[in-house]
Amino acid sequence: MKWIREEDWEGLMAFLPCATPSAWVDAARVNEETLLLNHCYLEQCAARTAMTLMFRCPDRPELLAKMSKLAREELHHLDLVRNILHEQGYRYRMLRPSRYAGRLNGAIRKEQPEQLIDTLIVGAYIEARSCERFAALVPHLDEVLATFYGSLLRSEARHFRDYLTLAEAYSSGPIEDRIEFFGEIEREAIESPDPDFRFHSGVPESKVEWP
Amino acid sequence: MKWIREEDWEGLMAFLPCATPSAWVDAARVNEETLLLNHCYLEQCAARTAMTLMFRCPDRPELLAKMSKLAREELHHLDLVRNILHEQGYRYRMLRPSRYAGRLNGAIRKEQPEQLIDTLIVGAYIEARSCERFAALVPHLDEVLATFYGSLLRSEARHFRDYLTLAEAYSSGPIEDRIEFFGEIEREAIESPDPDFRFHSGVPESKVEWP
Repeated sequence: MKWIREEDWEGLMAFLPCATPSAWVDAARVNEETLLLNHCYLEQCAARTAMTLMFRCPDRPELLAKMSKLAREELHHLDLVRNILHEQGYRYRMLRPSRYAGRLNGAIRKEQPEQLIDTLIVGAYIEARSCERFAALVPHLDEVLATFYGSLLRSEARHFRDYLTLAEAYSSGPIEDRIEFFGEIEREAIESPDPDFRFHSGVPESKVEWP
Repeated sequence: MKWIREEDWEGLMAFLPCATPSAWVDAARVNEETLLLNHCYLEQCAARTAMTLMFRCPDRPELLAKMSKLAREELHHLDLVRNILHEQGYRYRMLRPSRYAGRLNGAIRKEQPEQLIDTLIVGAYIEARSCERFAALVPHLDEVLATFYGSLLRSEARHFRDYLTLAEAYSSGPIEDRIEFFGEIEREAIESPDPDFRFHSGVPESKVEWP
């Protein structure tokens, strides 16, 4: 793993409940446009989530500082992905989102401070999975996209760590049970059959045949 | 006006329906904490508005590019204002927002593309007024805050121009009548008595007595 430090990668993989199934990688190789379109959308969503947390928690300086930086980075990534999309001759448009974030967000508790802790843990999962998927894709991409996605690995890994650190800092007790709880939802979303192909989708329902 | 070009300043002042009443400046000089707290909040709101527009208009590349940059700049400003707030010994917390943006936003038409054009015009007013208020404040501030607020003038003036350019570009006809329509709402919010002091508030109801 040339893009991030070995110990960061190991920590991230120990956090995730499973690796990306190879069938998803096969599908990604033949769905470049969908991948890029959905990637743009996800950068916007990541920036929006960070900003929502900032509005909810004006009294938490570390969260404001980390989320402000995270949102700016995601918006910068959005510009970069949009450029690549444009260079490849595609036109940005919204696709129906995958089921992934909806399933995780749907399990967030409604009361405070539980809602904050859960939101931060879900943020950690989304960033960790994004990092792991970029790493899974890099060996199969052309040089331009591989270099770009490789460069994103580092920031996604840092965002994962930021979310997890904040969740631990703001919880009055251990958060292992909630990490495990969301881990089961995450695993199910990643390992079960999924009719849609998206950046965070599960195992493609129709197998991709390679020549 | 050392912070922005003469012609930019003149264009902005020709756009605004009135200058800031001196009674507001008097109130600002004795309400530093409220001013800084509300300023933080407004930077967050400006970033959120830009992001909302991006979600609504994935098919408008110029808007995406300009709003992505604008949101990042506002988030960066937020970090800077929060630092100043902290250095002055204040603690960030949310205040009840002023009536200003609510009045302008409440007059935005609901159908498309009218909603987009109106939102962009309102964005232009908010940025132009912010720029004009920073300029009105600068002569009365200590050196640190004066230099900082002066530096913000330039970006607010650019944001004003960006919003107005996009409104003109996306409208199928002239937008002068809508500019005038929102100008009247803006003038009323700025020139009428206001019980709250905020960054965009009207004429303070209670006069500030200077020693």
